[in-house]
Amino acid sequence: MGLVSTPDQPWLSETQQRVWRQWLAANAELSTAVGRQLSQDNGISSPDFQVLVRLSEEPGRRLRIVELARGMQWERSRLSHHLTRMEKRGLVLRRDCPQDGRGQFAELTDQGGHTVEQAAPGHVELVRSVLFDHLPEADLEVLDRITATLVERVRRSDFGEGDAKEPGA
Amino acid sequence: MGLVSTPDQPWLSETQQRVWRQWLAANAELSTAVGRQLSQDNGISSPDFQVLVRLSEEPGRRLRIVELARGMQWERSRLSHHLTRMEKRGLVLRRDCPQDGRGQFAELTDQGGHTVEQAAPGHVELVRSVLFDHLPEADLEVLDRITATLVERVRRSDFGEGDAKEPGA
Repeated sequence: MGLVSTPDQPWLSETQQRVWRQWLAANAELSTAVGRQLSQDNGISSPDFQVLVRLSEEPGRRLRIVELARGMQWERSRLSHHLTRMEKRGLVLRRDCPQDGRGQFAELTDQGGHTVEQAAPGHVELVRSVLFDHLPEADLEVLDRITATLVERVRRSDFGEGDAKEPGA
Repeated sequence: MGLVSTPDQPWLSETQQRVWRQWLAANAELSTAVGRQLSQDNGISSPDFQVLVRLSEEPGRRLRIVELARGMQWERSRLSHHLTRMEKRGLVLRRDCPQDGRGQFAELTDQGGHTVEQAAPGHVELVRSVLFDHLPEADLEVLDRITATLVERVRRSDFGEGDAKEPGA
């Protein structure tokens, strides 16, 4: 973003600037399209789907809410409100974990499991059709490297989550 | 997202799935980091910065609100509320455009212009340090191609904005 250059600040090259804007546009528009597809075809939102997928992959189909929040990059209070709404729709349950006092679990219900199974194929079809179909193998490898490096650098940056800030595990 | 495969649905390859998750993680974490940097260093949010940058690039430093909303992929009502808050902080002004009845403009104030000039170098520094520094020229070219293609495909997809839906221009 931004064209405001200053004399003592190296600015982005023309190509870098174009790529950065394309990156932002791609994400904004892809995120909108993904949400629209899930909503129209399955009556769920993109965050609903993220929660359902995460839980469906866990042993026992449940996960500590604090870990779920971290994985989604959400504030715990925001996730808590979201889970309340999903619970009312029968997609998840919240369970206390009294034996170790380390807070609640979110658990997938049978209905939640059914919903994610119904929703996954259409979602995957969209992701494939816009991103992976016709993407040459060599480009996929480059994108693999770029995204992995980016995640790592953001985490290590002054403004990233940083491993040091994560509770011991 | 998602590991739920079905017999009649080709699933993502292992690499595609890793790349897709890295893509999502990179974006979520980068977006968080960008917001944190702007907030800590300049007292503005990421959407504030986006609005300021967009306006700063326009002739007369103003833009129709409907176009600003489209560029940001925001609902007009959401942008309208956001502009009200920015207006109270003296960063933008809203002006009617009575001569053609096509709705309001948002216009950068001097203070808004000053704010974006102050904020841009630190923002650019973060983007460079996590994405562009040490990115080989060849990888930048691939990323240019991938992001451009992705934007185009999302727009053309059943769930994209689509040129056909844009008001004539």
